[in-house]
Amino acid sequence: MLFTVNEIADLLQGELIGNGKLGINEFCAIQEAVPGSITFLANARYEKYLQTTRASAVIVQQNFKPTHDIPASLILVKDPYASFVQLLKHHQTTNSPLKKGVELPSHLGEHVEVGINVYRGAFSYIGNHVTLGNGVQIYPHSYLGDHVTVGQNTIIYSGVKIYPGTQIGNDCIIHAGAVIGSDGFGFLPRGDGSYEKIPHIGKVILEDAIEIGANTTIDRATLGHTHLKKGTKIDNLVQVAHNVEIGTHTVVSALTGLAGSAKIGNHCILGGQVGVTGHTAMGDHTVVSGQSGVTKSHPKGHVTLMGMPAMERKKYIKMYVIFKRLHDIYSKSL
Amino acid sequence: MLFTVNEIADLLQGELIGNGKLGINEFCAIQEAVPGSITFLANARYEKYLQTTRASAVIVQQNFKPTHDIPASLILVKDPYASFVQLLKHHQTTNSPLKKGVELPSHLGEHVEVGINVYRGAFSYIGNHVTLGNGVQIYPHSYLGDHVTVGQNTIIYSGVKIYPGTQIGNDCIIHAGAVIGSDGFGFLPRGDGSYEKIPHIGKVILEDAIEIGANTTIDRATLGHTHLKKGTKIDNLVQVAHNVEIGTHTVVSALTGLAGSAKIGNHCILGGQVGVTGHTAMGDHTVVSGQSGVTKSHPKGHVTLMGMPAMERKKYIKMYVIFKRLHDIYSKSL
Amino acid sequence: MLFTVNEIADLLQGELIGNGKLGINEFCAIQEAVPGSITFLANARYEKYLQTTRASAVIVQQNFKPTHDIPASLILVKDPYASFVQLLKHHQTTNSPLKKGVELPSHLGEHVEVGINVYRGAFSYIGNHVTLGNGVQIYPHSYLGDHVTVGQNTIIYSGVKIYPGTQIGNDCIIHAGAVIGSDGFGFLPRGDGSYEKIPHIGKVILEDAIEIGANTTIDRATLGHTHLKKGTKIDNLVQVAHNVEIGTHTVVSALTGLAGSAKIGNHCILGGQVGVTGHTAMGDHTVVSGQSGVTKSHPKGHVTLMGMPAMERKKYIKMYVIFKRLHDIYSKSL
Repeated sequence: MLFTVNEIADLLQGELIGNGKLGINEFCAIQEAVPGSITFLANARYEKYLQTTRASAVIVQQNFKPTHDIPASLILVKDPYASFVQLLKHHQTTNSPLKKGVELPSHLGEHVEVGINVYRGAFSYIGNHVTLGNGVQIYPHSYLGDHVTVGQNTIIYSGVKIYPGTQIGNDCIIHAGAVIGSDGFGFLPRGDGSYEKIPHIGKVILEDAIEIGANTTIDRATLGHTHLKKGTKIDNLVQVAHNVEIGTHTVVSALTGLAGSAKIGNHCILGGQVGVTGHTAMGDHTVVSGQSGVTKSHPKGHVTLMGMPAMERKKYIKMYVIFKRLHDIYSKSL
Repeated sequence: MLFTVNEIADLLQGELIGNGKLGINEFCAIQEAVPGSITFLANARYEKYLQTTRASAVIVQQNFKPTHDIPASLILVKDPYASFVQLLKHHQTTNSPLKKGVELPSHLGEHVEVGINVYRGAFSYIGNHVTLGNGVQIYPHSYLGDHVTVGQNTIIYSGVKIYPGTQIGNDCIIHAGAVIGSDGFGFLPRGDGSYEKIPHIGKVILEDAIEIGANTTIDRATLGHTHLKKGTKIDNLVQVAHNVEIGTHTVVSALTGLAGSAKIGNHCILGGQVGVTGHTAMGDHTVVSGQSGVTKSHPKGHVTLMGMPAMERKKYIKMYVIFKRLHDIYSKSL
Repeated sequence: MLFTVNEIADLLQGELIGNGKLGINEFCAIQEAVPGSITFLANARYEKYLQTTRASAVIVQQNFKPTHDIPASLILVKDPYASFVQLLKHHQTTNSPLKKGVELPSHLGEHVEVGINVYRGAFSYIGNHVTLGNGVQIYPHSYLGDHVTVGQNTIIYSGVKIYPGTQIGNDCIIHAGAVIGSDGFGFLPRGDGSYEKIPHIGKVILEDAIEIGANTTIDRATLGHTHLKKGTKIDNLVQVAHNVEIGTHTVVSALTGLAGSAKIGNHCILGGQVGVTGHTAMGDHTVVSGQSGVTKSHPKGHVTLMGMPAMERKKYIKMYVIFKRLHDIYSKSL
């Protein structure tokens, strides 16, 4: 047993209605809940499941007034989803203690500074002049080139490849297979139509509390920095090209590509498979619908963009409504 | 020499016309065939190559009536392409025996169950409480976290990263660099515009006979499972988000993204670079054209979708025909 | 100090105006330059920064006539950007000497031919019958299957996975996490709706001077070869399917997918997130705009394509102009 219902109600500072002595050993979605589990009701759409759920306990909104008898114990809180997430975090922290220590064989270069409570997994490779803060976790098969710095409590999962000189802040999570600091895609055309590689001597800076998804790639700058600011979250298989800047607390979904020197503001949300043209600027609080192509600057932000080339979502939808009727309209006009 | 033409005719239970004693040591496409090779004719479009092919033998349809003299020996079968594939498989099985044994150094955790005839390559990492069925092949640099289970005869190529708790069935193939079980991309917005990470305590289940392409990513569920059913094939660089369900014998092409909790039916075919919005349901036998964006549910299936937002292909094409003429139509109407 | 301004002027065979004794120890973009740095002015748009730049030296066009006093020393050359790139290359060559030697543990198979001045990083895996030319660099965690050949001075960064039989030329760069030679995505439908895997016994050939981006995937051919010709550059997260051919000096941007047997000409430029349908042919000097879908052959080349399905850019833009006005046009016509 992980918890009693009473313990959970205490942890969440919630009001208990029903049996507090029941044991909870699983977390479920309401429609898939099993006896012995706890779930939550955050969305009125799911209220119908309350009568039939097999969960032993449900976290609900504090103003919730059940119209029927509910078989489960209820825990009333201000924000059921946030409380459920809090419970999950508590569970994860107590049941999945961080890894520590050094597994062998692993490679440690020269002039490396290693904090306390660091995990270095088997077959991990730490180059020369690397700095690892306290509590850093380096999983197996990860590679940190020379002069990489990693802040406190950052987790680098298996098979991450970090090129030399990259700077990573505190409390970041880098998922498996991500590549950070590879050369930007820049070539100088020669007279004969062949290409000369432009050396990329800049680097990548990730500030604190950044999450990078699995197999995402972030190129180093030609000169200067590719720079992701505090709290930004990048999904899987995203391409961030050389010299891109992303502001604070911005969210970029999977398979999106940001071309060279694109500037993305703070608090933006980019859907999946979005493309952003190089050397454009996107203001704060911009939202971009999935599969859109942002081909020019929208520096004022506070707008939702859609389409390829992307325009204001409202405008796009007005046209799309006509587009969908094009055949009918044209047939009628003949 | 790999075979004589006679041996191949026997293996395929085909009828031989021509010299059965010729030696075959290569497999070729008909237009690129070299002496000593075998090829096949499955498509009438390629029949013109029959007179000029340098192949020593050609597998043809059993009703095939050559109108000219054919220089090559012919093997007549019911389905030439299927027979050619059968021959390739026979060749591959006899000439590329499975790897076995343990290369050192490699990491084996505690409480691991390992079947017979298992290959564990150098620098592979097997966590604690892992189960590997008979005939499993783990190539170099692969990582299997704690409590992963892998069914019989599954092949895990080099550099695959499998997070803890993932369940993989029998006869699966996971290509190099794939990541399975990484955290879903889920965050709770805080009042100040920053994001709180939602713990992902669910897992990934791959049933039997699944193939996962190189550098594809499959996220674990928030709660419950991300679930791929029997016989489904996923191409390279595909993103499968948390809590996605894919039915049996469905095919997903490269660079496609399936957002969180999307449900894809059985026997579907998704083209390349398709996007599917989260929490949508796609019925059985749905086909989606490349680069389409499926933004809502199409639960009945048995339909071909196209466009962004995707609609029935026929409808889309009718409109697209007008779209292509828009400039002319509009100019004329002035 | 890396250079004096005089040394740089000599190296670039440029004419010096100003103080040649200043020391240079950094390379910067003109708007971000710091004292002690050198920058360049290649684009008239940036000329305004010349008065205010803090750079100690600026490389400018030989016909440049400053209209005001310029604080920095100037070096006059024929092509400022090319000269700056030449300087970067000189700097990189002298300051980042190539890695050499063998780090342990690393795996070396049997019957391997290794040239001189080869680097094999820790945890790298070289299979049997592999050939490595002089000056080849294999970074940690890279995997080369049996019978792989790698030409002189090719760099294979960390965690690259190369399947058996792949042939790589001289002077190539393969970035971290790239997968080369994985099975093509080809299956034969069985009568019951399940799929039979088609063995892929072809291979991948990369000619000389090719660059492959991070986490890009290149599948082996079913029969014959997947073939990239001399000088071609592929960005990150690109999918190159089985039997694709790409000509010389072609550039393919990130997240683009080339389906099976697509043929791309010489000197083409493909934008990001482009899709190319299988069994199509694209002539030399074709340019494809980002996010376009090329669904048919354009064998003559020398054209810019746009849209999905892609058509000539001029034509697409003419229609798109009308599309953007559709709502207005339709409202007016009522």
